[in-house]
Amino acid sequence: MRSSEEFDWSETHLRVRYAETDQGGVVYHSNFLIWFEVGRVELCRDHGFAYRDMEQQADAFLPVTAVRVRYRSPAIYDDEVTIRTRVTSIRSRAITFAYQALRKCDGTLLAEGETDHVVRNREGRARSFPTEYSGRLRQKISP
Amino acid sequence: MRSSEEFDWSETHLRVRYAETDQGGVVYHSNFLIWFEVGRVELCRDHGFAYRDMEQQADAFLPVTAVRVRYRSPAIYDDEVTIRTRVTSIRSRAITFAYQALRKCDGTLLAEGETDHVVRNREGRARSFPTEYSGRLRQKISP
Amino acid sequence: MRSSEEFDWSETHLRVRYAETDQGGVVYHSNFLIWFEVGRVELCRDHGFAYRDMEQQADAFLPVTAVRVRYRSPAIYDDEVTIRTRVTSIRSRAITFAYQALRKCDGTLLAEGETDHVVRNREGRARSFPTEYSGRLRQKISP
Amino acid sequence: MRSSEEFDWSETHLRVRYAETDQGGVVYHSNFLIWFEVGRVELCRDHGFAYRDMEQQADAFLPVTAVRVRYRSPAIYDDEVTIRTRVTSIRSRAITFAYQALRKCDGTLLAEGETDHVVRNREGRARSFPTEYSGRLRQKISP
Repeated sequence: MRSSEEFDWSETHLRVRYAETDQGGVVYHSNFLIWFEVGRVELCRDHGFAYRDMEQQADAFLPVTAVRVRYRSPAIYDDEVTIRTRVTSIRSRAITFAYQALRKCDGTLLAEGETDHVVRNREGRARSFPTEYSGRLRQKISP
Repeated sequence: MRSSEEFDWSETHLRVRYAETDQGGVVYHSNFLIWFEVGRVELCRDHGFAYRDMEQQADAFLPVTAVRVRYRSPAIYDDEVTIRTRVTSIRSRAITFAYQALRKCDGTLLAEGETDHVVRNREGRARSFPTEYSGRLRQKISP
Repeated sequence: MRSSEEFDWSETHLRVRYAETDQGGVVYHSNFLIWFEVGRVELCRDHGFAYRDMEQQADAFLPVTAVRVRYRSPAIYDDEVTIRTRVTSIRSRAITFAYQALRKCDGTLLAEGETDHVVRNREGRARSFPTEYSGRLRQKISP
Repeated sequence: MRSSEEFDWSETHLRVRYAETDQGGVVYHSNFLIWFEVGRVELCRDHGFAYRDMEQQADAFLPVTAVRVRYRSPAIYDDEVTIRTRVTSIRSRAITFAYQALRKCDGTLLAEGETDHVVRNREGRARSFPTEYSGRLRQKISP
């Protein structure tokens, strides 16, 4: 297992949708978990594979077993948001990702968090990571 | 096929969630489609079966092929809402439901609409309605 | 009022999120209304203004009064989707938009629809369109 | 400040909606945060007030500053779910709630978690808890 410092951040961007706001005038807090998942998927793509293929071709799913989020500043409708994602640990049957959500125009940190996942097959039984995919996730991204 | 007048309304109740509001201070309009689906499911239960069982045991799914909604009055956070649902037509391979969403405390009509559905199997191929279920949907509900 | 044929389509792209799928294995139908709203907002940007500014600076909101959607083909997780949006009619106190959602890779039509809107102020009272914004929406987009 | 053991659980029930499932066949994980919020609102009602009134009449909002969730067992479409909520700490400007989501039919723990909140006014400035409301939240619920 590599130390967490070696993992690089992956970045993607999205724009806050009206449907994601609430009557408090800011983004409803559960939407950050959906954005973090967008970040995970783009991190996979940055490492050379589609998360969709890992599910369909390798029968490996990554259900979430825990989430932790700290909200720092509200996200506002129509804001462009940068989602930064990186792997913080990867083992044979589990993986943890870390995230930062930033307002793109000024770099304000909106929220940060982590999600823990285990590897399961379609029937929900624990299985080990397909090495083709875990190998890619472990690989340092060279720019 | 029975005339639409013979079908009875089914009723269920829900309470507006904070997550369903938007920054305009009212319920975001797409949520009514989710509420209408809650109405469909409770209509099935009123007719003696779980929609879940029709999918799992009879391999019959009812994907939505069209929706029409007219919004009459905004729904507000924490409002109790009555969803009234009825079948308006049922054929061998298709069904249409009609809906009303009402504010429970004063009966104000919030929205009304219809959804059209076809019957498909898990693989997405057209199939006919399992007669066990279509028969129940056609049956007049006696109070 | 210009005839509808004169209005051009505006285009934007999005990628299907895991959260937008349901256990049927396809995108849950209400999400198309959220995507159509993404289309409206980008149409406004194509016409030189942010919908956000119209709400905040001109106190003009465009609540949805009716939606109509026909679903043609299921949208799948991780698909890139093109949302095409155009104005089909604009009057002093109302506007109608039309939409197409297409699978980007092969142009398959996923869904098409329309939404009707009225112009209201923050308190929910009917008002006329701020001419600055309606003028821009009426303007032919030159490529 | 009272010790956390003195706070009682508040209970409410909801039924899993089709829209809350994902293509993995289970409830998408972010929905538990929405359910926890349903739990908070019903806890307030159990303590004799509507959260809506605290926002509107006392200008006190409780934005979420952190969430922590551990997922124990998947929630399935159409399951009835019990949401148990209690206050674990309440201070002049902050409050923490704890939650359990259980499958109603057999008591299986689906998820548990906590949310931290600060008290702010409509403009987003920190303020202290209106004593009328904090007093009620501190009060032991007598059955």
